[in-house]
Amino acid sequence: MSVSNQPIAGAQYGEDARVDLEPVRRFLSVATPAAWLTAALADLPTLLADHANCERKAANTALALIARYPEHTSMLQQLSRLAREEMRHFEQVVALMQERGIAYRRLSASRYAGGLMQSVRAGNVERLVDTLIVGAVVEARSCERFAALVHVLEPVDAILARFYARLLASEARHFEVYLDLARAVCSAPGLLAEVDERIAHFVALDADLVCSDDPQFRFHSGAPASGRHCSS
Amino acid sequence: MSVSNQPIAGAQYGEDARVDLEPVRRFLSVATPAAWLTAALADLPTLLADHANCERKAANTALALIARYPEHTSMLQQLSRLAREEMRHFEQVVALMQERGIAYRRLSASRYAGGLMQSVRAGNVERLVDTLIVGAVVEARSCERFAALVHVLEPVDAILARFYARLLASEARHFEVYLDLARAVCSAPGLLAEVDERIAHFVALDADLVCSDDPQFRFHSGAPASGRHCSS
Repeated sequence: MSVSNQPIAGAQYGEDARVDLEPVRRFLSVATPAAWLTAALADLPTLLADHANCERKAANTALALIARYPEHTSMLQQLSRLAREEMRHFEQVVALMQERGIAYRRLSASRYAGGLMQSVRAGNVERLVDTLIVGAVVEARSCERFAALVHVLEPVDAILARFYARLLASEARHFEVYLDLARAVCSAPGLLAEVDERIAHFVALDADLVCSDDPQFRFHSGAPASGRHCSS
Repeated sequence: MSVSNQPIAGAQYGEDARVDLEPVRRFLSVATPAAWLTAALADLPTLLADHANCERKAANTALALIARYPEHTSMLQQLSRLAREEMRHFEQVVALMQERGIAYRRLSASRYAGGLMQSVRAGNVERLVDTLIVGAVVEARSCERFAALVHVLEPVDAILARFYARLLASEARHFEVYLDLARAVCSAPGLLAEVDERIAHFVALDADLVCSDDPQFRFHSGAPASGRHCSS
């Protein structure tokens, strides 16, 4: 079963949720497997703790890009605002966990982000473009996963469903910010085609990481059971 | 000449500047030497670029503490808000630099923060307490330096003087946040006395770094010329 054809959280979740997820769906090649959603419902404490970690790590990535590429002045403000928004989400997740008596904790990293970053090329500009594309893929996948979570959580945990619905809009915007930055860095025509090739490469990698067996449950983990679970 | 007895930026700089700097002055043992202020006026592009770097690095430090000490749940929200505020200041400094056509750039680190961190003890709790105290010292010194800059900038660059006056209140608050966190981590009576000893140690280290000759001008650098320049 795939969640790719289910309707997306709509206006009933409040103003922040009135977001068009079609660009995210067109960008990603596969939907989150249903087996991952089942695993998420069965382990909400790990889902939330790892989600908080992901927000913190996303802020770190934005700060690291600022430190590494200070000469790309047009990126600085956007990356900094993005980092601030990730940390605001971190605070929101941690507050929700505290309300529920769930401890924020250190967790071993998912294979997902490392699996994408392994494919980032060396070289100054290549590394920047690839890292920005990885940022876009991670944000798009997070957004798609939030939407899928809203659907399965609604009947069993309406508060958490609304929480994820509110985060949808931000993640959808972050995905576009990273894509725009990657294209702005490579604005010459020949380089733009290269950006599209790299996007296709990382989207395929995301699909493989999301659909293949993963021994460890995390926010961005693959399918928890044997076999492939995705449909395009 | 010392700036320690000069009056502090007051209400003429707007609401954010109505801040009592006495706690910061009582905490630090020496004032910024006048020779550093002369060097700052002579190289505003380096001052601003390094200030932007300091804001980014302060955010990084707060994120690193969250990652390293997730079990100290009471710190998480405060450190995250602190990181967001540092990044907002980063954006403000970078915007001001862009208005003036000054490039944000990578700069070799000042000896200051490294000089303080070298004295941080190993051991899980010791390292946490010392790092929080270093955070308090750095924020207090930044605050004291902003106030000193306001005075010398006012006759020559009123816009920059107002900018630093507005940042005073935040830095004064951050100093208190770090001190409170250090004391909260060591709330047992015996440990609180140890915190006071460590504060005295790092304040003395700050005084030495700020007053002794420093070959390199940075936001937190020491005196640029020969000889000692500080008065307590």
